[in-house]
Amino acid sequence: MLKKIEVTEAIFAIKKDKQLTWETIANAIGMSTVWTTSACLGMNSFTDSTADKLIEYLGLPAETKFSLLENPTKEWDKSVPQDPLVYRFYEVVGVYGDTLKEVIQEKFGDGIMSAIDFTMSVDKEENPKGDRVVVTMNGKFLPYNAW
Amino acid sequence: MLKKIEVTEAIFAIKKDKQLTWETIANAIGMSTVWTTSACLGMNSFTDSTADKLIEYLGLPAETKFSLLENPTKEWDKSVPQDPLVYRFYEVVGVYGDTLKEVIQEKFGDGIMSAIDFTMSVDKEENPKGDRVVVTMNGKFLPYNAW
Amino acid sequence: MLKKIEVTEAIFAIKKDKQLTWETIANAIGMSTVWTTSACLGMNSFTDSTADKLIEYLGLPAETKFSLLENPTKEWDKSVPQDPLVYRFYEVVGVYGDTLKEVIQEKFGDGIMSAIDFTMSVDKEENPKGDRVVVTMNGKFLPYNAW
Amino acid sequence: MLKKIEVTEAIFAIKKDKQLTWETIANAIGMSTVWTTSACLGMNSFTDSTADKLIEYLGLPAETKFSLLENPTKEWDKSVPQDPLVYRFYEVVGVYGDTLKEVIQEKFGDGIMSAIDFTMSVDKEENPKGDRVVVTMNGKFLPYNAW
Amino acid sequence: MLKKIEVTEAIFAIKKDKQLTWETIANAIGMSTVWTTSACLGMNSFTDSTADKLIEYLGLPAETKFSLLENPTKEWDKSVPQDPLVYRFYEVVGVYGDTLKEVIQEKFGDGIMSAIDFTMSVDKEENPKGDRVVVTMNGKFLPYNAW
Amino acid sequence: MLKKIEVTEAIFAIKKDKQLTWETIANAIGMSTVWTTSACLGMNSFTDSTADKLIEYLGLPAETKFSLLENPTKEWDKSVPQDPLVYRFYEVVGVYGDTLKEVIQEKFGDGIMSAIDFTMSVDKEENPKGDRVVVTMNGKFLPYNAW
Amino acid sequence: MLKKIEVTEAIFAIKKDKQLTWETIANAIGMSTVWTTSACLGMNSFTDSTADKLIEYLGLPAETKFSLLENPTKEWDKSVPQDPLVYRFYEVVGVYGDTLKEVIQEKFGDGIMSAIDFTMSVDKEENPKGDRVVVTMNGKFLPYNAW
Amino acid sequence: MLKKIEVTEAIFAIKKDKQLTWETIANAIGMSTVWTTSACLGMNSFTDSTADKLIEYLGLPAETKFSLLENPTKEWDKSVPQDPLVYRFYEVVGVYGDTLKEVIQEKFGDGIMSAIDFTMSVDKEENPKGDRVVVTMNGKFLPYNAW
Amino acid sequence: MLKKIEVTEAIFAIKKDKQLTWETIANAIGMSTVWTTSACLGMNSFTDSTADKLIEYLGLPAETKFSLLENPTKEWDKSVPQDPLVYRFYEVVGVYGDTLKEVIQEKFGDGIMSAIDFTMSVDKEENPKGDRVVVTMNGKFLPYNAW
Amino acid sequence: MLKKIEVTEAIFAIKKDKQLTWETIANAIGMSTVWTTSACLGMNSFTDSTADKLIEYLGLPAETKFSLLENPTKEWDKSVPQDPLVYRFYEVVGVYGDTLKEVIQEKFGDGIMSAIDFTMSVDKEENPKGDRVVVTMNGKFLPYNAW
Repeated sequence: MLKKIEVTEAIFAIKKDKQLTWETIANAIGMSTVWTTSACLGMNSFTDSTADKLIEYLGLPAETKFSLLENPTKEWDKSVPQDPLVYRFYEVVGVYGDTLKEVIQEKFGDGIMSAIDFTMSVDKEENPKGDRVVVTMNGKFLPYNAW
Repeated sequence: MLKKIEVTEAIFAIKKDKQLTWETIANAIGMSTVWTTSACLGMNSFTDSTADKLIEYLGLPAETKFSLLENPTKEWDKSVPQDPLVYRFYEVVGVYGDTLKEVIQEKFGDGIMSAIDFTMSVDKEENPKGDRVVVTMNGKFLPYNAW
Repeated sequence: MLKKIEVTEAIFAIKKDKQLTWETIANAIGMSTVWTTSACLGMNSFTDSTADKLIEYLGLPAETKFSLLENPTKEWDKSVPQDPLVYRFYEVVGVYGDTLKEVIQEKFGDGIMSAIDFTMSVDKEENPKGDRVVVTMNGKFLPYNAW
Repeated sequence: MLKKIEVTEAIFAIKKDKQLTWETIANAIGMSTVWTTSACLGMNSFTDSTADKLIEYLGLPAETKFSLLENPTKEWDKSVPQDPLVYRFYEVVGVYGDTLKEVIQEKFGDGIMSAIDFTMSVDKEENPKGDRVVVTMNGKFLPYNAW
Repeated sequence: MLKKIEVTEAIFAIKKDKQLTWETIANAIGMSTVWTTSACLGMNSFTDSTADKLIEYLGLPAETKFSLLENPTKEWDKSVPQDPLVYRFYEVVGVYGDTLKEVIQEKFGDGIMSAIDFTMSVDKEENPKGDRVVVTMNGKFLPYNAW
Repeated sequence: MLKKIEVTEAIFAIKKDKQLTWETIANAIGMSTVWTTSACLGMNSFTDSTADKLIEYLGLPAETKFSLLENPTKEWDKSVPQDPLVYRFYEVVGVYGDTLKEVIQEKFGDGIMSAIDFTMSVDKEENPKGDRVVVTMNGKFLPYNAW
Repeated sequence: MLKKIEVTEAIFAIKKDKQLTWETIANAIGMSTVWTTSACLGMNSFTDSTADKLIEYLGLPAETKFSLLENPTKEWDKSVPQDPLVYRFYEVVGVYGDTLKEVIQEKFGDGIMSAIDFTMSVDKEENPKGDRVVVTMNGKFLPYNAW
Repeated sequence: MLKKIEVTEAIFAIKKDKQLTWETIANAIGMSTVWTTSACLGMNSFTDSTADKLIEYLGLPAETKFSLLENPTKEWDKSVPQDPLVYRFYEVVGVYGDTLKEVIQEKFGDGIMSAIDFTMSVDKEENPKGDRVVVTMNGKFLPYNAW
Repeated sequence: MLKKIEVTEAIFAIKKDKQLTWETIANAIGMSTVWTTSACLGMNSFTDSTADKLIEYLGLPAETKFSLLENPTKEWDKSVPQDPLVYRFYEVVGVYGDTLKEVIQEKFGDGIMSAIDFTMSVDKEENPKGDRVVVTMNGKFLPYNAW
Repeated sequence: MLKKIEVTEAIFAIKKDKQLTWETIANAIGMSTVWTTSACLGMNSFTDSTADKLIEYLGLPAETKFSLLENPTKEWDKSVPQDPLVYRFYEVVGVYGDTLKEVIQEKFGDGIMSAIDFTMSVDKEENPKGDRVVVTMNGKFLPYNAW
């Protein structure tokens, strides 16, 4: 039984061999680039049909399907991330965490943004002074319950 | 000399007393809600003119201006945040950190999204199944240097 | 402007003075004992009407209302709790965390139990070999999104 | 001599191969789903007869019996769990820890809920707004000793 | 309302002033030295009658009774203790933890020693090569439940 | 050259194969159960004659002698132990650490209990309400030096 | 597909075998010593042409090129470094961190020095009292954005 | 007796009141800007004559001299710094630590750069694409001793 | 009742006022400099006669005697020290810890050096290349017990 | 290419096989016991001639020379050591750290003891009450620079 990490490594090998991008893979299975990448990295589970499409498009062995469907254990290595790209997002959460709380709760009331009923996209904004990364997070507002 | 935290407390007191929102304050000084909130919380420095507008609009004592202009030390209390609203963003960074790295670097090359040359907004997306929080981060792409 | 912790201390003082229990306070405001206790400890926000009832029942000063309505910052002191009563619950999460994941996801699919759209109760089960504590947690199942 | 982790992996392989659920396995050995899952994950020890039933039902090699009977070392990887399903329970302990202490000790006196003389169940509560996870913990109350 | 720490400080002041020992205080209230000390340090709750005896013997103000009866929150400052006397006990747990597990479970089966239904004593064993500290812990064995 | 951990594994295999207990092994080599167990777990060094007896009694290969004599590096995995049996002892040190300091130093003066010139035993105290674990620690008192 | 760490090990082996220095390797590929070393250690990505030059100069297998071009994950082992040479730089950041903030922001305004648009060199300054290490860091100033 | 932190606060107050910069203060006492700033922040000790000059130039009370001369305890708050300006330097040490070790020891042999016999300067390099921060560290090379 | 820290502050004030050194204070009470300093810092307890001598020599208030005699709680702030002077000793323990274990146990057998039955001195060794600090630790060897 | 750890293991094997001590090995290569042990453990680098002597005396393979000469990365496993022998030295640094700072800086001025230009020895002091371990550290005093 293959582990998710082994399937991820197989995907990376094919992706490099065939010179694919995450975007082309995502288009091939009809899902977004961010979700497809995270699922290929083993951080989300495929549905039956997206798994089939991925297996067909990449030519993965059939036995990988079970792992693609499996519910992932979502864990990460460093409590405080170190890679500069990831750290900058951690820094944003640190610097703007209380601000997000103030602004979201002002707009929505006492509650949170779901990280489960959630989508995210990454876009490129061209700019003569240097292109800009645009990350859009979209999560359902969940109000706190009183009982 | 007032500390930033003391000015923040003064702003909170007036805001509650006058029943203001961060959005009305932001409009009054002509800046975005997120930036205005973060600057009022002491995590960004005001420019000369935004400080003047804030002081006038809220009726803050003139002596607060110095603190509003001061460069903040941006620090946070818990390395792993605990308040559920803030934690969900930390979780997004943990779960999707490697995905963000893959997708951003695929689109832009080896480098990072700046958290300094950076803006962020929070919007409400109405939805019959429950309104959604939309957080948009926009940071300049900074390519790594080889020398 | 009173801080939530100050209101909590005021509630404790009155509760002891009048020899009240959390259960009688909860009954007086028409809410559950667990929620009422957590809101009095400053970990949940009162609604307008429950705040009014609490103020009236306990004879709290009117100025506490603002704090009772305020959205709490939910933080705790020790990442690994030490008080034996609280630690045992942490231990249950440690020992049975993977079990909960297996069983919940088997019954519901890939997703989580919400800790926001959530209720909890504590009951006493009489037993000749020693009474038993029954804690019931009830949270909405949130399926992971694919997009 | 097989380690518990090796027996767990063997159980997972058979479970997937035969398309079993934890619930069917639990029924086959006459124990609850939560306990059976935790014991199969190596976090509880089987009794002689439940080990025999499990071996027979799953067709495990006889040599696994010794490991199934062995007393487990109950340890977990992350002091603060990261997988969102498990984290939410940790968050409940953080947010409601003091509340649980107040309410349990109000009902029972100074003492704790045992995590050893303890049972737990997971149920599904159907709900048109979204099904709900119901987790019930039941532990003996242990009063503190004075001596 | 006095906090437990304030009552502890009052007890220390009287104890020093009257040149009492923990042993004489314990004898006066008819409890063991270890328990009496821990309760005076605020780590155990007094019963009604032991509180009365302590107040009378030491001449504590009547208002301390409430705090003496209160259920303590049992927390400690350093996860890894530093004071050499306390550290040596931590070291014993580290060095002999697995040994205690092997030997206790060999004698009693799968379960633990309760730290709640628990007593402890400290004795002096005279010895020409240097007196010896004898610490005796006595806790109820709690077998793990299968359900 | 065998590592201590390899000899420990060999001892466990023989112990299970021959259905021995730590107590019978200890009797065979004329040492206490606690010390023998800890030495077999690699946390204490055998003397020449106890190593010979152990090798003969268990039928260990002669080449294990060197490892049995070797001075152990005494380290443990989790700074805060997690297995419930071991954690309860850690909790005792946390809850009663200051009490032990008060009581020991009252009886002996300023100093500590040695964890090196130290013995420990585990006994079973039969009790109709449930048997009790009795752990006795006996360490030389070491007074602090002034120079 | 070779991992970066494997290519690093191959480079070390050739470097030792051919008695090369980082400086000669850097000269051969026309880049600085610091950058070349960091890229060979897997902490920066080669460009197409520098990868070709390195492969040719060192006689690396062609299959290493892919890894040399790959974007590195920049992580380090110890949050607080221990090797004395590295620790001294950590200490400089600790001791002089606030000083750097004061002086840089006095000269440049509110913002930071980029660690991405960044170069660094190491030079030897001969000195009769003992040669001196001169480390020069050069990073673009990035002003904070207000929006 | 004034603590160093109190003198630092007094210096900050005068500096703001008189609109001074660290550079003008440094020039007035004939020392570098970086050293002067760090000494005013309490992280270095003044010599007798620099203390006199500082007191005279700023008009500090004479009683501050003792504190200015006092040897500082050099400690910092966050093991991993959070303020973005300081964090970037920490990141440089993390990303380039092994590189610094390779390059310095290649140039100098086995040893370290002293952080005690050490100077540092901060300069501004004008650049049409954005000015650059130039930080130069200069420390004596200390070879390891063999004995 | 004065706390040890308050007595330490009083000693520092007098020491500075009278321009004393630790060495002169130590000579006045007939003890070593290291021990005297540590006891004045509150990390060791005075004997009756050394307390009297200290009080007389420094002119401390009589009420300080109780605190001087009190057994200290020996704790320190940073698990990994930061002040460079203290850190270097921590580094020595890190770099040479296993070496000390090898060499001491080779000379003495399986056991440890006591940190309780222990003395330490600091001397200056004059040297034309730079004076040297000589720290001598002297602790009783304690052999491990087998029982 | 052999790693230092592999050479260390080879040295241990020969040392045990030939029944050598660190002291005899040190004598054979004309260096001190402490330094020789630390270099054999991989925490210091050999010079060309001491490496040759060690290889000849122990009969190590010639290929080990490269590793013996290599500059070590000096890292340790546990930030707070656990083995009792090593912990006691950590405890000495914790308990006496501030004392060492006071006494060394009183004798030498503001600066530190070098851990690089440093020697250490371990001696046995015979004593009828129990032999004593004498550890002598000798490091160059490094005064802080003002610039």
